Amino acid sequence: MNFLEERIVKEGIVKSGNVLKVDSFLNHQMDVILMEEIAREFKRRFAGKIISKVLTIEASGIGIAIFVAREFGVPLVFAKKSKSINIDGDMFVAEVESFTHKNKNQVIVSKKFLHEGEHVLIIDDFLANGCALQGLISIAESAGAIVEGCGIVIEKGFQIGGRVIRNLGYHLESLAIIDAMDSESGTITFRDQEEK
Amino acid sequence: MNFLEERIVKEGIVKSGNVLKVDSFLNHQMDVILMEEIAREFKRRFAGKIISKVLTIEASGIGIAIFVAREFGVPLVFAKKSKSINIDGDMFVAEVESFTHKNKNQVIVSKKFLHEGEHVLIIDDFLANGCALQGLISIAESAGAIVEGCGIVIEKGFQIGGRVIRNLGYHLESLAIIDAMDSESGTITFRDQEEK
Repeated sequence: MNFLEERIVKEGIVKSGNVLKVDSFLNHQMDVILMEEIAREFKRRFAGKIISKVLTIEASGIGIAIFVAREFGVPLVFAKKSKSINIDGDMFVAEVESFTHKNKNQVIVSKKFLHEGEHVLIIDDFLANGCALQGLISIAESAGAIVEGCGIVIEKGFQIGGRVIRNLGYHLESLAIIDAMDSESGTITFRDQEEK
Repeated sequence: MNFLEERIVKEGIVKSGNVLKVDSFLNHQMDVILMEEIAREFKRRFAGKIISKVLTIEASGIGIAIFVAREFGVPLVFAKKSKSINIDGDMFVAEVESFTHKNKNQVIVSKKFLHEGEHVLIIDDFLANGCALQGLISIAESAGAIVEGCGIVIEKGFQIGGRVIRNLGYHLESLAIIDAMDSESGTITFRDQEEK
């Protein structure tokens, strides 16, 4: 097990409906030291790639992605989930369904902050059905940017999102891939990534 | 002018309706180096305070507050804006009106992550009418935590929020206080903080 899998086993709580609660360190309370370790691991996994911008989606992605942006020495752009009066009319838009919140959101990025030819690394905390990630990829490609990779903290490997993204040929790195979890026993089965 | 005021003058855009757009470096695209500089400045302004937790509110507060948490070597907790199926029933709640989005949100923090006697530093990007900050203070005090201070990146000094919080006796530090801005000329007038 890697450092993240160990933390998930120690503090994650499996709830019914395939919900994994990691709110003690990842998406409500955030362990800053762990965030930095995650960022260094993404830097290692995407070593050699030239990245000019990190792209994520609010809210919990921001706390991870900003440390990744720091590792690469580039700005972070976070997509917003609803039209705000502070956003100009000129923006890239994707429609995203949330597994957690059971609703649809318009996800938007201002055209001022994503440009043709930029090398984008997309970062998010969770990958399940993949809608959020697909939305971010769609936005990056609408801008004419190159998606150099997608870095996910926790992938629910028993849902379709990761397979779709990999089948499409994207370089997807998930620091922990959960192949099964059981709310009765609390057991979490991780995919072995050593053999990759 | 301090480093932040200089950046606001350089890149901020004054829109009608007292809207200041700083989305090129603060709340859509984030300049990581500036975020770290902001965090170090908060550490300096709250020097000598014992802080055990940094509290902010999603979304754009997170990217600043996580660097502040790193400066103090403590965890970050970010309040969430709507009830999620991933949040347990046991939580602190405050009602918050958004100046930007013109709507009301329930702001929630799990009781697992704020405890009696904790020393909390509240961080947010903007202070205008003060509703978000009042909500965070209310949540911290509901938990029996001690609000050691509030750190704001940009305060709209011509709105009531800052005065209310200071009148209530809280130690509020705003890195830039805007006393006036004019969308016709684009002029921004900062409050002189040197004389404090």
